[in-house]
Amino acid sequence: MTEQGTLRVAVIGTGRMGADHVRRINDVISGARVTAVVDVDGERAKSVAGSVDDCTAFTDPAAAMASPDVDAVLIASPGPAHEETLLEAFRHDLPVLCEKPLTPDSASALRVLQAEQRLGHRRVQVGFMRRYDKEYMQLKQLLANGDLGRPLLLHCRHRNASVLPYFTDQMLINDSVVHEMDCTRWLLEQEITAVTVVRPTPSANAPEGLSDPQLVLFETDGGAVVDVEIFATCGFGYQVQAEAVCENGTARIGDAHGLMTNTAGGWGGEIAPDFVARFEEAYDREVQHWVDATRRGEVHGPSTWDGYAAAAVCEAGVRAQAEGRRVEVEMIERPALYG
Amino acid sequence: MTEQGTLRVAVIGTGRMGADHVRRINDVISGARVTAVVDVDGERAKSVAGSVDDCTAFTDPAAAMASPDVDAVLIASPGPAHEETLLEAFRHDLPVLCEKPLTPDSASALRVLQAEQRLGHRRVQVGFMRRYDKEYMQLKQLLANGDLGRPLLLHCRHRNASVLPYFTDQMLINDSVVHEMDCTRWLLEQEITAVTVVRPTPSANAPEGLSDPQLVLFETDGGAVVDVEIFATCGFGYQVQAEAVCENGTARIGDAHGLMTNTAGGWGGEIAPDFVARFEEAYDREVQHWVDATRRGEVHGPSTWDGYAAAAVCEAGVRAQAEGRRVEVEMIERPALYG
Amino acid sequence: MTEQGTLRVAVIGTGRMGADHVRRINDVISGARVTAVVDVDGERAKSVAGSVDDCTAFTDPAAAMASPDVDAVLIASPGPAHEETLLEAFRHDLPVLCEKPLTPDSASALRVLQAEQRLGHRRVQVGFMRRYDKEYMQLKQLLANGDLGRPLLLHCRHRNASVLPYFTDQMLINDSVVHEMDCTRWLLEQEITAVTVVRPTPSANAPEGLSDPQLVLFETDGGAVVDVEIFATCGFGYQVQAEAVCENGTARIGDAHGLMTNTAGGWGGEIAPDFVARFEEAYDREVQHWVDATRRGEVHGPSTWDGYAAAAVCEAGVRAQAEGRRVEVEMIERPALYG
Amino acid sequence: MTEQGTLRVAVIGTGRMGADHVRRINDVISGARVTAVVDVDGERAKSVAGSVDDCTAFTDPAAAMASPDVDAVLIASPGPAHEETLLEAFRHDLPVLCEKPLTPDSASALRVLQAEQRLGHRRVQVGFMRRYDKEYMQLKQLLANGDLGRPLLLHCRHRNASVLPYFTDQMLINDSVVHEMDCTRWLLEQEITAVTVVRPTPSANAPEGLSDPQLVLFETDGGAVVDVEIFATCGFGYQVQAEAVCENGTARIGDAHGLMTNTAGGWGGEIAPDFVARFEEAYDREVQHWVDATRRGEVHGPSTWDGYAAAAVCEAGVRAQAEGRRVEVEMIERPALYG
Repeated sequence: MTEQGTLRVAVIGTGRMGADHVRRINDVISGARVTAVVDVDGERAKSVAGSVDDCTAFTDPAAAMASPDVDAVLIASPGPAHEETLLEAFRHDLPVLCEKPLTPDSASALRVLQAEQRLGHRRVQVGFMRRYDKEYMQLKQLLANGDLGRPLLLHCRHRNASVLPYFTDQMLINDSVVHEMDCTRWLLEQEITAVTVVRPTPSANAPEGLSDPQLVLFETDGGAVVDVEIFATCGFGYQVQAEAVCENGTARIGDAHGLMTNTAGGWGGEIAPDFVARFEEAYDREVQHWVDATRRGEVHGPSTWDGYAAAAVCEAGVRAQAEGRRVEVEMIERPALYG
Repeated sequence: MTEQGTLRVAVIGTGRMGADHVRRINDVISGARVTAVVDVDGERAKSVAGSVDDCTAFTDPAAAMASPDVDAVLIASPGPAHEETLLEAFRHDLPVLCEKPLTPDSASALRVLQAEQRLGHRRVQVGFMRRYDKEYMQLKQLLANGDLGRPLLLHCRHRNASVLPYFTDQMLINDSVVHEMDCTRWLLEQEITAVTVVRPTPSANAPEGLSDPQLVLFETDGGAVVDVEIFATCGFGYQVQAEAVCENGTARIGDAHGLMTNTAGGWGGEIAPDFVARFEEAYDREVQHWVDATRRGEVHGPSTWDGYAAAAVCEAGVRAQAEGRRVEVEMIERPALYG
Repeated sequence: MTEQGTLRVAVIGTGRMGADHVRRINDVISGARVTAVVDVDGERAKSVAGSVDDCTAFTDPAAAMASPDVDAVLIASPGPAHEETLLEAFRHDLPVLCEKPLTPDSASALRVLQAEQRLGHRRVQVGFMRRYDKEYMQLKQLLANGDLGRPLLLHCRHRNASVLPYFTDQMLINDSVVHEMDCTRWLLEQEITAVTVVRPTPSANAPEGLSDPQLVLFETDGGAVVDVEIFATCGFGYQVQAEAVCENGTARIGDAHGLMTNTAGGWGGEIAPDFVARFEEAYDREVQHWVDATRRGEVHGPSTWDGYAAAAVCEAGVRAQAEGRRVEVEMIERPALYG
Repeated sequence: MTEQGTLRVAVIGTGRMGADHVRRINDVISGARVTAVVDVDGERAKSVAGSVDDCTAFTDPAAAMASPDVDAVLIASPGPAHEETLLEAFRHDLPVLCEKPLTPDSASALRVLQAEQRLGHRRVQVGFMRRYDKEYMQLKQLLANGDLGRPLLLHCRHRNASVLPYFTDQMLINDSVVHEMDCTRWLLEQEITAVTVVRPTPSANAPEGLSDPQLVLFETDGGAVVDVEIFATCGFGYQVQAEAVCENGTARIGDAHGLMTNTAGGWGGEIAPDFVARFEEAYDREVQHWVDATRRGEVHGPSTWDGYAAAAVCEAGVRAQAEGRRVEVEMIERPALYG
């Protein structure tokens, strides 16, 4: 850190998410600045670095992490590159904020988990940003205080306006439903034990080959049942809702709100265009919390274990989807480090 | 009444409201049927009578009331004709449901009031149908049970899609705001003591010569203040809202509800097209209650006194509107019959 | 019918529903009156008959139907008695409004179906009253006009405050979810082809032996998927919600509305205490429509086929529930009479 | 500014607002840090300075502004001290974010306005933070784009749970309604020309001597009418709502939203406890925008003119309140600097 205690961050990957995190760290939150950006596309790295004071461009994550001007790492590169970058960060014992997924499959996630255990202390926060959304935080708190009794069911809606033509059924699970997997585990403090996927006839708006929407069911080791509507081509905007049904009441988040108009067409309001608009403040809060904890030498938030568990549940989900049957989730025991 | 106790009703006036009440009495509610219809336009009266079993057409209200087949009278003729019809009904001692206004001004309303007092018992229910609307009934009950403490302010919105070109400023008060006058008196159980009208520059959608919208203030003898937005050409539909601000909380009715959609334009729902749709069930309930009470020989609901008070407040309102100043309401003391 | 065309109705069964229908026919709607009441408990029948003008008490449905004063039959007796009463009504060729279930199982429902086919014309309207609820009617109309595209998913919530101790898992399906079965068939105009039931660990508030709540899935022959939360002991009131997810948007009904308060505990409103309050107007509308159609010699509304189909789907549901697996629905082809 | 372009801020006044701004600048937003804090209470200044790296405590604002480590000033001291501090800042030509009120009366505000005009360029942003609230920004944008036509009425609700016993009628205007004055001017882009205050009998929960709630009316030079409910002791929380009624529709902000629960008491949600919770993000955005603009050498946001106008309208409001009549607002012509 600098003398003023400013955290110097290397941002690895300068695509949409990476570039947005560079802006966030430099222009929105306090206590950190970006001193290195990394991209395999060297021109792109240079272009981003050039727009920021005192920032060096790299094409190799390892080189950036070896720099004396780097205190921490934010990984926003494509998932397949995460494992190697994470292991390198462990070699430098650098704190990491790793965009989801931790890694693309549970085998590689397990290797990262074991490496962090060998390191002996937590270094990784995984980018499940919904945990930092105000409404999710309210729901979490309400469930935790126990007033509503034990959660029995969780109804989730995850709607997205449209997708690019190459979007696949597996991506529905791995890129989209993975958020509900993490929310389920975090809100209920239970592990997911089985996944079932039921599919209606696809929407005419879904690209060729994509079975959209789908209804995904989770069962948990605490005896809860979760249903998730994933609808990636709903057309009308981005909408994420959740209702926890508990023994003594239910609680719902994600209803539209804000500006309400009466016009010739009726009453109503806008729907967020995409996740960037909907979760803007959650991303800000996530990175600010990571910076704050890191400056204090602490690690909080979603852990490597949460990243591993999500990968394991995703694998069960993709199999359930492909085979049209209920699939049980296979996971190792939770290591003491993540107790 | 018939042997089965069916109330035989003469409906006087067969315009929009009258014809709708004929349908309501015959086809919707129980315990009554229309045996006479009256209209100065004899062809129209015959046409309506012809569509109903055992129903006679009249052009003279007095003749209908003299018929042995008439137990009760529903007055839906134009306001200026009400006084004479009401006095005739008193001569026959017939129970009356009189569409608002009781009469068009407070002097004539006072004559009706005095005639009913001479009769010695209540015979008239005035058609302030909002008192039979479910949401208004809930609000009334909530205020009456006292949980929220004393009402301090009442915010009212009264919006109408459009009006015919001959609509005038006085009609804004006499035909529209008169409902808020009655609701104020009924909800708060207080008399209105002064009226003030404030006008913005009229909407471009208001017909030539109509100053629309207007903001009308009432003060009451219980120390409450009421503000009413009357907007007769709001364009988007019919919307009536009220919020009572009390010492220990507020209560609001009239928000849109029912079917809610997410579509490309955002989220939202419909707004009622007009008062017929919005208050359909209130009208049904009003007439059913009148029939039920009448069959038991009782009179409930808004009284001649309420009709007189509304006329007196309207007069103050029209003067306040014309003179651009606060005008105090002039009323006689409440007679014991309406205690 | 009487000379005035009043429909004379025999109400069979004078429990909660039957007694409420007697009141409804006599005191709320128009065009009908109750001339006979039937109950195996003769004292009860006499007591109800005694409170109504010109009404005879019977203990035998057949005797009531043989009376010259009976034009139509409303069956509100327990389900196991329905088959015999329906067949007797067919013998008298009397129009029937039969409270759900048509009969308790698909075999008996099939016998009724075949008897009505032999009769050669529809005589039975089944009491699926949600089809007469304003919000459901709006949703139906919206889906029918096609603006939202094809329905893909239907999310249903069916919550009830509490149940009597003898309530069973089968009753969750047969008495409660049966409404969603009918709504699914009616809203989507598709048949249900398979049922799956998933159960969380029961709520502590569920009576011993009742697995409550449950999540019930339907698949339809039109390729839609429906999920139903049935929660009979939710504690907080009666709440029925549905959201249709279509290709071009979603539409939701059943959100709380009406009076909204701000008080020390926050903002909010009431939840209906039970189905009687929630669906009061649907019941009124249902019986009024039945009376109107019957007076015109017509039969509309949910048919014997709908009653049979519900019974068949219930059977699959109960089996799916008991066996913890997806069960396909077995039904005969739809007869031409119900085309 | 530092070499990295970090804005070094002196925060003057370390009460509730001042201390919160210190935290905001150091721990929440980017691009600035607090290098000086000033309080007449030297111990308090030292205590706040001690909790921050490289921060000096002062008791005299002039001394802080003379420091080479200060690039900009945030004034959060009591209103009566603002004039002198602002004039001193002008002497140093330092950019200022001045918490509202600019100064406590229009005469002193006019002196500040004239001093800034002599300086020849804008230096002051006034702390009307509602302009940075997301919902207000949406409403502003909607009105500005003109889709709804010209605004005719603006209904405002400003509710606060409770006040300290020394709260006065004048403070209702000067501390609370002043926000609606600024919002009216900003949303409508019109000046307020007259104020009227109407008072119901005070709530039993209002402290002795406070006439609470009150209804305050504004008229504008664009022909709009604004009504404001100010209720400082509403008991149930902090709630700010606004509805703009335009020629072609209305738009409302400030309805409760977020987490919605169904529990034994009904459905509903929480109400914000106070303005800090309700406007937290607006404050963050306000200060971030000020820092960003200041670093670019620019001045945006509410100007000295806006502070002067608010003071002039407040004076009319206090007089209208005291004298129970409509009072016209007296203001100088808008100087070219604020054109």
